[in-house]
Amino acid sequence: MKLRQKMILKRLEPDLLRINQALSGHLATHVHLISQVWDHIRISGGKRIRPLLFILAARMCGAKEDRLPEVSTIFEYLHAATLLHDDVVDAATVRRGHSSANTIWGNQAVILVGDFLLSKALSIAVATKNIRVMEVLAQTTTFMAEGEVLQLVNTGRVDMTEAEYFEVIIRKTAKLMAAACQIGALMGGAAPALEQAMAEFGLNLGITFQLVDDILDFTGDPQEMGKPVCNDLKEGKITLPFIHVLGQATPAEQDHLRRLVKESDVTALARELLPLLDRYGSIAYARQKAQHYTLAARQNLAVFPDSSEKTLFLEITDYLYHRTA
Amino acid sequence: MKLRQKMILKRLEPDLLRINQALSGHLATHVHLISQVWDHIRISGGKRIRPLLFILAARMCGAKEDRLPEVSTIFEYLHAATLLHDDVVDAATVRRGHSSANTIWGNQAVILVGDFLLSKALSIAVATKNIRVMEVLAQTTTFMAEGEVLQLVNTGRVDMTEAEYFEVIIRKTAKLMAAACQIGALMGGAAPALEQAMAEFGLNLGITFQLVDDILDFTGDPQEMGKPVCNDLKEGKITLPFIHVLGQATPAEQDHLRRLVKESDVTALARELLPLLDRYGSIAYARQKAQHYTLAARQNLAVFPDSSEKTLFLEITDYLYHRTA
Repeated sequence: MKLRQKMILKRLEPDLLRINQALSGHLATHVHLISQVWDHIRISGGKRIRPLLFILAARMCGAKEDRLPEVSTIFEYLHAATLLHDDVVDAATVRRGHSSANTIWGNQAVILVGDFLLSKALSIAVATKNIRVMEVLAQTTTFMAEGEVLQLVNTGRVDMTEAEYFEVIIRKTAKLMAAACQIGALMGGAAPALEQAMAEFGLNLGITFQLVDDILDFTGDPQEMGKPVCNDLKEGKITLPFIHVLGQATPAEQDHLRRLVKESDVTALARELLPLLDRYGSIAYARQKAQHYTLAARQNLAVFPDSSEKTLFLEITDYLYHRTA
Repeated sequence: MKLRQKMILKRLEPDLLRINQALSGHLATHVHLISQVWDHIRISGGKRIRPLLFILAARMCGAKEDRLPEVSTIFEYLHAATLLHDDVVDAATVRRGHSSANTIWGNQAVILVGDFLLSKALSIAVATKNIRVMEVLAQTTTFMAEGEVLQLVNTGRVDMTEAEYFEVIIRKTAKLMAAACQIGALMGGAAPALEQAMAEFGLNLGITFQLVDDILDFTGDPQEMGKPVCNDLKEGKITLPFIHVLGQATPAEQDHLRRLVKESDVTALARELLPLLDRYGSIAYARQKAQHYTLAARQNLAVFPDSSEKTLFLEITDYLYHRTA
């Protein structure tokens, strides 16, 4: 796994370099606090998956190279804006293994810098002078904001359904990846059918990505993940393995599980819940769903002729499905 | 004053009706919490100055009527988004005489609904399919977000300069009014010189508006204003009358004033500061500045031929300068 990751990263390195260059150079604000917060987020890392998806999609669809790194920053700025507002909402103290921005600069600054990054992303989109790019982006941000509100409303709701779960992850994660791929296709002037295929690829990849994330919250190595097992549940985030186990468990077990979530004690959750997830095949169930979406994503690529970008897309899809952190 | 206000309102009534209709019908979300928060804000009132400025500007520049009310909502949504995030930042409990949304639904919901309204505003702008409209709007939201951060950084900074004060009010208030006027002109297909004149009119009007607001914080009737005298200072918002009095006061008085702001006791502030503002002519100084910008705004209208919209603009300018609440 590690080797495969290294090999993919090796080939993505030149683009990653360009993305990171664009991210460090294009914020263009004279308000020092904004640059400070942004530099903190930027340096804290992140895989830059969204900008990479955009660049690969654009290149696969024949876009000119010159403005791609700059335009790709749209997706990292939007992602960062969401994380900043999320951290306030979750009262998070850690993000990517570093102190979260809100603990350093306070919620106020973090909300406003989030607003700035969102506006900045839209400014860069406007500069493409492509109406379709802006349409897709405006729809995406509206759709995402609804997803964030839904997630908030669903916090701690142990009776959340599988359909509600999928609506949230599509809105809060998959849609932005879909937009990155679709806008890449638009920058390459792709035909509508290919543009649509790219959007669907991004969506299916994003769903896989979030499903795996939610599974790793139970199965991942806390060290490698930088957070304790069952951390999502502790924060009241109900995810698919839990929804599944609750549907399978005996009434007595159900009551017990509901109480555990209410008490939000990660140690007790890990001790009591993990064996039940195992007994009822709930992790296997979630992985099967993830596999379904990963296959759908691969399928979406079938309409594209072979290319090195397509190969990379397939490998990234595979990697995101198999990753362990 | 009251009579004049009534007469202007009478003539604006049909447009106000259309704006309020558009505001109650176009949010189009199935996420109940978003509609709830928005309905609360919508019903809590507000003068709808920004949508009105947009409609008058568009009409004066010859825009077709059909989509104006809908497009005008952009400016109310943006304004509301800013207020929602402001209320979290200020930890406000009251807005327009009603409980502020954050006290009812919590900061989390308010942040996310603010994000939704911002995205919604941009979606409506995109639907005009006019790139210039989107350019102006994206620049405006970026510029405003910087202003919000600057205001936060300047909170409680008694050594704030007059130039810094103007930068904040231009960014946080005047720029959105400028955008409403400029985008109105764009919807009417105005020539660049007229578009520019409209933008400058909105900017000067917005500066006047905020200066008067800041003056009324000291001179207004608390009952009519729905907040105590010196409320801005209590929240650490340093405004022009205070900057002026600090520049004129003796060193001993300066020390005393700085201490008062630090203690943020509105009663003590009102008792000690108001006589000093009077003695040093600080209110008169701020009013003189407001008059300067109000005259500049009138001057910006000179390039437009006479029309009922122009007359209304002149009367609104006059009203905003003379208002008492």
